[in-house]
Amino acid sequence: MARISLEAAGDIIEAVFAKGAALGLKPLSAAILDAGGHLIAFARQDGASTLRPQIAVGKAAGALGLGVSSRAIGQMAVDRPTFVAALGSIVPSGIVPAAGGVIVVDAGGQPIGAVGVTGDTSDNDEIAALAGIAAAGLQAQA
Amino acid sequence: MARISLEAAGDIIEAVFAKGAALGLKPLSAAILDAGGHLIAFARQDGASTLRPQIAVGKAAGALGLGVSSRAIGQMAVDRPTFVAALGSIVPSGIVPAAGGVIVVDAGGQPIGAVGVTGDTSDNDEIAALAGIAAAGLQAQA
Amino acid sequence: MARISLEAAGDIIEAVFAKGAALGLKPLSAAILDAGGHLIAFARQDGASTLRPQIAVGKAAGALGLGVSSRAIGQMAVDRPTFVAALGSIVPSGIVPAAGGVIVVDAGGQPIGAVGVTGDTSDNDEIAALAGIAAAGLQAQA
Amino acid sequence: MARISLEAAGDIIEAVFAKGAALGLKPLSAAILDAGGHLIAFARQDGASTLRPQIAVGKAAGALGLGVSSRAIGQMAVDRPTFVAALGSIVPSGIVPAAGGVIVVDAGGQPIGAVGVTGDTSDNDEIAALAGIAAAGLQAQA
Repeated sequence: MARISLEAAGDIIEAVFAKGAALGLKPLSAAILDAGGHLIAFARQDGASTLRPQIAVGKAAGALGLGVSSRAIGQMAVDRPTFVAALGSIVPSGIVPAAGGVIVVDAGGQPIGAVGVTGDTSDNDEIAALAGIAAAGLQAQA
Repeated sequence: MARISLEAAGDIIEAVFAKGAALGLKPLSAAILDAGGHLIAFARQDGASTLRPQIAVGKAAGALGLGVSSRAIGQMAVDRPTFVAALGSIVPSGIVPAAGGVIVVDAGGQPIGAVGVTGDTSDNDEIAALAGIAAAGLQAQA
Repeated sequence: MARISLEAAGDIIEAVFAKGAALGLKPLSAAILDAGGHLIAFARQDGASTLRPQIAVGKAAGALGLGVSSRAIGQMAVDRPTFVAALGSIVPSGIVPAAGGVIVVDAGGQPIGAVGVTGDTSDNDEIAALAGIAAAGLQAQA
Repeated sequence: MARISLEAAGDIIEAVFAKGAALGLKPLSAAILDAGGHLIAFARQDGASTLRPQIAVGKAAGALGLGVSSRAIGQMAVDRPTFVAALGSIVPSGIVPAAGGVIVVDAGGQPIGAVGVTGDTSDNDEIAALAGIAAAGLQAQA
């Protein structure tokens, strides 16, 4: 199984922040998790608020936990609010049901980790996450 | 970066309660937090109910965590209820999405703490919080 | 039943800090709780570390929860460590088994609240707590 | 008060890992927290085990919470085991009582954050943390 190395995680974060700068986004935070949901690397840009680590991790960990992007979990939360709310209390990191959490897959489509971005709108957070994954030569789950 | 001293925190609380008295509000409670969300000072007026400490702290801590006032978080909770609900389980103090939690900023606009007030209507709580911050010669986040 | 008013709570805190100054203690934090364990007032002196609110409350709340001072709980923790450790997870505020948490009683010996002090040695914390209770004209549980 | 910028946090982490390489240490993990105990940056070297993020954060957050290094908390845990154990349940991140968590102070000696390192022996973790702080031109609490 491929893994996301610390070097690749650093590349992702660098590209996430570059995308944020290019689009003029607010200060971003980015978390890179391994396949088991454990943090490989995290960075919070100057001026970002204090809860950003938990939100970034919660987006990525929720995605890995349910096997879909945090955007899809956001839609799930609209369709089945009590189900998603109930999961929050059984996941140590919580689940953040908003776009910006994206699973990274290997060539065979198996999850090797996830990226969580927060700080601007959820849509922009996801754009930055996807840019980061692509810049590191990795593949986001379709 | 400036800090909110204990003396300034005492001034804020005194002014919050003075505003409440001037407006004839119900018994108020006020929490003053540092930039990291840690309590500097708290006071609950006689006759206020028992959950007021947690509500006051939850308004102020939520504001610092997300970087906006608890009034803005209240609007966010209307627009995106499942997102705000999900945050509740990843914030130790919880998040209270109602007006009355206001960030205090330094001359450069950086957060140096927050004030949370509860006891009357959310609108009145916020009026008292803002009055307290101004009376201490400090600046509320715009 | 007598209660600790907010005014009395303020008097206790003022006297706790005066005792600390008189003895040359480190920056102190003091929490005043009502009979139900709910915070009436709290203050953390400039320079005190960030966990002091929880420690001050944990000393006072533990005392009220078990009906003895946090000094006695400290001894209990030596004698029956697993018992005290187990309580920590069923008390929302935790239990801090070290001197500095003192129950305040009315003329009939019934608890009307508690004071928790932290910042210096446990012994000095307790001296300051007792001084604060006495200065406010209240009675510590024997 | 100075802050630890994300750039400085990156410098610290780079120097921590350089020290680890120079000393031939096992894969290290390093967490950089702001004064309020909120994560600025984190990195876990390839081959490090999965709980390292929590241990690194728990060392640094415990130091900030109590105002002393995690080495001092380790000694405190030997002297007063039930006291330190009790704190674990009132600190969201837990407290890890072992060397490797070091407070960073400004010119006036006030905490501006903390560094937590884990992966090798506690003594070596602390050596790497101190090297990282010095390399970034910052000051460890004496």
